[in-house]
Amino acid sequence: MFNIALFGAGRIGQVHAVNIANHPETNLYSVIDPYLEGAQKLAIQYDAVIQSVEEAMADPAVHGVCIGSATDTHANLIELAAQNGKAIFCEKPIDLDLSRVRDCLAVVKQHNAPMMVGFNRRYDPQFRQVREQLSAGVIGKAESLLITSRDPSPPPAEYSKVSGGMFRDMTIHDLDMARFIIGEDPVSISAHGSCMVDPAIGEAGDIDTAVIVMNFPSGAIATITNSRRSGYGYDQRIELHGEKGLLQAGNVKENLVQHWGEQGCISAKPQHFFLERYQAAYIAEWQRFVDVLAGKCEPECNGYDGEQALVLAEAALEALHSGKTVSL
Amino acid sequence: MFNIALFGAGRIGQVHAVNIANHPETNLYSVIDPYLEGAQKLAIQYDAVIQSVEEAMADPAVHGVCIGSATDTHANLIELAAQNGKAIFCEKPIDLDLSRVRDCLAVVKQHNAPMMVGFNRRYDPQFRQVREQLSAGVIGKAESLLITSRDPSPPPAEYSKVSGGMFRDMTIHDLDMARFIIGEDPVSISAHGSCMVDPAIGEAGDIDTAVIVMNFPSGAIATITNSRRSGYGYDQRIELHGEKGLLQAGNVKENLVQHWGEQGCISAKPQHFFLERYQAAYIAEWQRFVDVLAGKCEPECNGYDGEQALVLAEAALEALHSGKTVSL
Amino acid sequence: MFNIALFGAGRIGQVHAVNIANHPETNLYSVIDPYLEGAQKLAIQYDAVIQSVEEAMADPAVHGVCIGSATDTHANLIELAAQNGKAIFCEKPIDLDLSRVRDCLAVVKQHNAPMMVGFNRRYDPQFRQVREQLSAGVIGKAESLLITSRDPSPPPAEYSKVSGGMFRDMTIHDLDMARFIIGEDPVSISAHGSCMVDPAIGEAGDIDTAVIVMNFPSGAIATITNSRRSGYGYDQRIELHGEKGLLQAGNVKENLVQHWGEQGCISAKPQHFFLERYQAAYIAEWQRFVDVLAGKCEPECNGYDGEQALVLAEAALEALHSGKTVSL
Amino acid sequence: MFNIALFGAGRIGQVHAVNIANHPETNLYSVIDPYLEGAQKLAIQYDAVIQSVEEAMADPAVHGVCIGSATDTHANLIELAAQNGKAIFCEKPIDLDLSRVRDCLAVVKQHNAPMMVGFNRRYDPQFRQVREQLSAGVIGKAESLLITSRDPSPPPAEYSKVSGGMFRDMTIHDLDMARFIIGEDPVSISAHGSCMVDPAIGEAGDIDTAVIVMNFPSGAIATITNSRRSGYGYDQRIELHGEKGLLQAGNVKENLVQHWGEQGCISAKPQHFFLERYQAAYIAEWQRFVDVLAGKCEPECNGYDGEQALVLAEAALEALHSGKTVSL
Repeated sequence: MFNIALFGAGRIGQVHAVNIANHPETNLYSVIDPYLEGAQKLAIQYDAVIQSVEEAMADPAVHGVCIGSATDTHANLIELAAQNGKAIFCEKPIDLDLSRVRDCLAVVKQHNAPMMVGFNRRYDPQFRQVREQLSAGVIGKAESLLITSRDPSPPPAEYSKVSGGMFRDMTIHDLDMARFIIGEDPVSISAHGSCMVDPAIGEAGDIDTAVIVMNFPSGAIATITNSRRSGYGYDQRIELHGEKGLLQAGNVKENLVQHWGEQGCISAKPQHFFLERYQAAYIAEWQRFVDVLAGKCEPECNGYDGEQALVLAEAALEALHSGKTVSL
Repeated sequence: MFNIALFGAGRIGQVHAVNIANHPETNLYSVIDPYLEGAQKLAIQYDAVIQSVEEAMADPAVHGVCIGSATDTHANLIELAAQNGKAIFCEKPIDLDLSRVRDCLAVVKQHNAPMMVGFNRRYDPQFRQVREQLSAGVIGKAESLLITSRDPSPPPAEYSKVSGGMFRDMTIHDLDMARFIIGEDPVSISAHGSCMVDPAIGEAGDIDTAVIVMNFPSGAIATITNSRRSGYGYDQRIELHGEKGLLQAGNVKENLVQHWGEQGCISAKPQHFFLERYQAAYIAEWQRFVDVLAGKCEPECNGYDGEQALVLAEAALEALHSGKTVSL
Repeated sequence: MFNIALFGAGRIGQVHAVNIANHPETNLYSVIDPYLEGAQKLAIQYDAVIQSVEEAMADPAVHGVCIGSATDTHANLIELAAQNGKAIFCEKPIDLDLSRVRDCLAVVKQHNAPMMVGFNRRYDPQFRQVREQLSAGVIGKAESLLITSRDPSPPPAEYSKVSGGMFRDMTIHDLDMARFIIGEDPVSISAHGSCMVDPAIGEAGDIDTAVIVMNFPSGAIATITNSRRSGYGYDQRIELHGEKGLLQAGNVKENLVQHWGEQGCISAKPQHFFLERYQAAYIAEWQRFVDVLAGKCEPECNGYDGEQALVLAEAALEALHSGKTVSL
Repeated sequence: MFNIALFGAGRIGQVHAVNIANHPETNLYSVIDPYLEGAQKLAIQYDAVIQSVEEAMADPAVHGVCIGSATDTHANLIELAAQNGKAIFCEKPIDLDLSRVRDCLAVVKQHNAPMMVGFNRRYDPQFRQVREQLSAGVIGKAESLLITSRDPSPPPAEYSKVSGGMFRDMTIHDLDMARFIIGEDPVSISAHGSCMVDPAIGEAGDIDTAVIVMNFPSGAIATITNSRRSGYGYDQRIELHGEKGLLQAGNVKENLVQHWGEQGCISAKPQHFFLERYQAAYIAEWQRFVDVLAGKCEPECNGYDGEQALVLAEAALEALHSGKTVSL
């Protein structure tokens, strides 16, 4: 049984808390959050203790840390955990600043700390099935990947600033997905964007509608279509074209009931947002981290992956502003 | 080029007129209808002559007849055509009275007249595909057939009388379809019905909602589900379960566009009624009759098929009233 | 927190064990099984004790019993639990003999014991959605219900005897589903069956392919299509036609990935069998029992429902053998 | 009745011949093709005469011309037809050279000749439905369009030269589709391509896999995904995202039968290629030209549209080679 210290008792912290507690090999040992009321609620619910950052890091009973706190605390907590010999699971991003990310990863490397970055979609059973069928040769060599990712509704315009903007916050998942599916690092990237959903987002210097295209060494091309508002729930699909055919992973609907009537045939919307759609992914992701803790396997989505996704987000931003394809 | 005399210039006559005229090997030679205005309209449109029944039957230029007139004229016209050496295409039913049907078929047999009965659905590309995949062994031996057949909206209650009631008028197509798919004559039939759609239909002694079950010599079971009103267009589906799997032929929709929005995912209704849904079937059916005219093949849906469908409709009626399975 | 004594450590007992343990308001207190090794395995896994039937029934710490033992033990255990003031959750059937069921329910009634019978499919999110949309008036009045239920592969022929045959073992779920969806007790039933899958099943006096039709007081008709072998996984669908349209609950597939290639478009099979397909249903069912334990609601699927499903299974058997519709 | 002179008796000429002959208001009057055998075959089949270019242009009985001959004859024939007062239907492209196109259109304008360019996909019932639902406000303002267009298999490498390359030959349809759906001329275009399907195509200086992105004045973004080989038939889909939701027009399959079996659920491939998929589109396109001939409406897809599609194809080529977004 591995004892886990959970940093952050907010929305994503609560997702991890359930999964840590339900997993037969992990124990939610402690909760750390400057907002004490939130920490207490989780601690009581799962019979955990409350600790300070220092206590948790120094506590020899803690085997691993799960970092789901505010983005600007990630890099520090990672470094402390690495220095204290804890296995590290950290929500994306490591940091919004690339040089800070690199410094942090150097510390992780120096202490040889096992570290996994939370690109949860890699563990979505649908997307993983696409990756596995590609590996099994079902469609031959990958040629063209299309990732559709649309949020149900836009965040407040001010969120653009704290989140680092659409590419660093939202598209970063799709950039990682492209690397995961194609299995290569891209050689170039271009980006197109506009502000169609909320003018306030544009005034804040961000976009809400985008298309990003990447070329890969094998010749494969990946296209990402993003919007901050779908109008029909969380739109999360991928489509991979290869030598011998196509693999499509469609949306997961709220239910499978169809109603035929005057209006036609109506079926349910996609599951509303990431908490619903990626529930199974979060569980599978945690299983992977437990396997890392147990020494059964390497982290699949590691610091390098976290760094590369940010590298691509920054290059996409440069391409958007310059109107030129950026070489990587 | 075969010259065709068309009996009946109403709705179904017009369907056949187009197909006769468009087929490169048939010519719409004459139109016969006591309602002269209708006959004239068709005759002008397709450059045909107007004839009386006697003229058409006596005219040596007429190679084949297409009978789409009122039901109670079918048997007479068939007999006249057989006696005059014409090839016969007749819309279902031959007659609503079984002994009349048998007398008529005896005349057809005596004159060795090629005759095809218009169970158009046998020529629907979807249903035929099911039959062909069964023949090709795709699902092994047939075990359980489900036919769903629902009209978009009920006929006037008084139509129950002239049509011979739901089983003789509507279900008869499904009874023929079961024989066509399974490829056997059933050994028993049972029926269940109620009047759910329009009380006036019940007052006229008919039903509007029904389930019919047939057992076949091979052990296969066929189930027919009928309603006089769907609420969503013309519902025409079949599902065939066999040793090694299932074949499903779904509805043909008005278009293939899907709209994802607040309400969910909406796609179009099934094509409205038989003129739309079975347009391709009517064309393929006519092609088959042309092949019969050309001596290339036997009528696939012949007098025996017409008789058997009526036998089953009557047995279903008996089963409905007695609450007992009727042996055939 | 309610303490639960689990009777039966076999396949279905293990399903309940997980759900009891994972539910925040129930505790897997004890396991009872004459096969001690199985009981021990479960007890260790969930930190429960092993008890004899007598110990569990006499133990005041036990709030409720979950009966998942062999069918012929159900009625006795129910009576003992009722006499000892425990809330009762029992897998279907109560007993294969109707008079034994009635005696047992009399005891339950006498002691006013809360009792729920495990017709798990009522809690399937898809089927429940159909029931709820019907209640919400989405399709108006129910007119025709179709239940498709096919197992992936047949049981051994000898199972026919211990299980009471296909109708009492398998169809009984569909008979209950029809009552659940339509919300009435049927007035008549007829049945058609054959042995298409395995001749040994026929030699054992049972069937493996069936169609059952029921009429309800409202005029609604329900049709059940059963097979002991699908060839494509567990086929569990319902289709409800009403005044204003149709509701369809399709199969839950193993995944949502489609592969387009030379052969066409291939998507995954339905989930293999009941453990996969009804996983969510078992959890929801247990939630309902917890609500009953907490006094928040009445058992939704009670002794009467258990009795009626068996009454229908026996009437279906009579109808099958007599070839007559049986009035209820 | 309008008399039509058909230029070109090859594959596309034969498509138009049937539609001209079947339309109640047009008559296939003459066929013109330097390959006399082909011209004769068509002429006999449809009871038309054979003419030389000069004869047809000079013949006052000819009301309209249908140009389906080799690409390098289009511009000349258009000019001759305009000078001789014929209504013009011409297959795309007008010419592969933009200045030749402009000269040709100047002649058409000078003679005020009605002219329609054959971008047949505009008349596909599925795509038109998307355009109409957009116009009807179903999804609000258009924001992001995705056009998927993949041929079933690549042309011979040498075809790259005569066809002007993938963008001028294949993508040109998608460029026109984007203008048709969005209803604006784009302000910029970028392009990405590689040679994944056949190295000989790359050696011939062309590509076979591409992604093109266009920005429109309204802020809308259109993305085109192309491949010269699908592996599963002709892949022709569009997906339009707007303020209030999504419209998807999927592929038209060869049939609607699904087979559930050991492998999963298999449905048919998309219709094989353009002759099958766009059969209805060609008929609707011809109906539009007849309406133009009858003076009922303006050409919907005119010389300007033909020119603009080529402008976009050339700009895409420039963008591909420069790695820069090209402003228009």
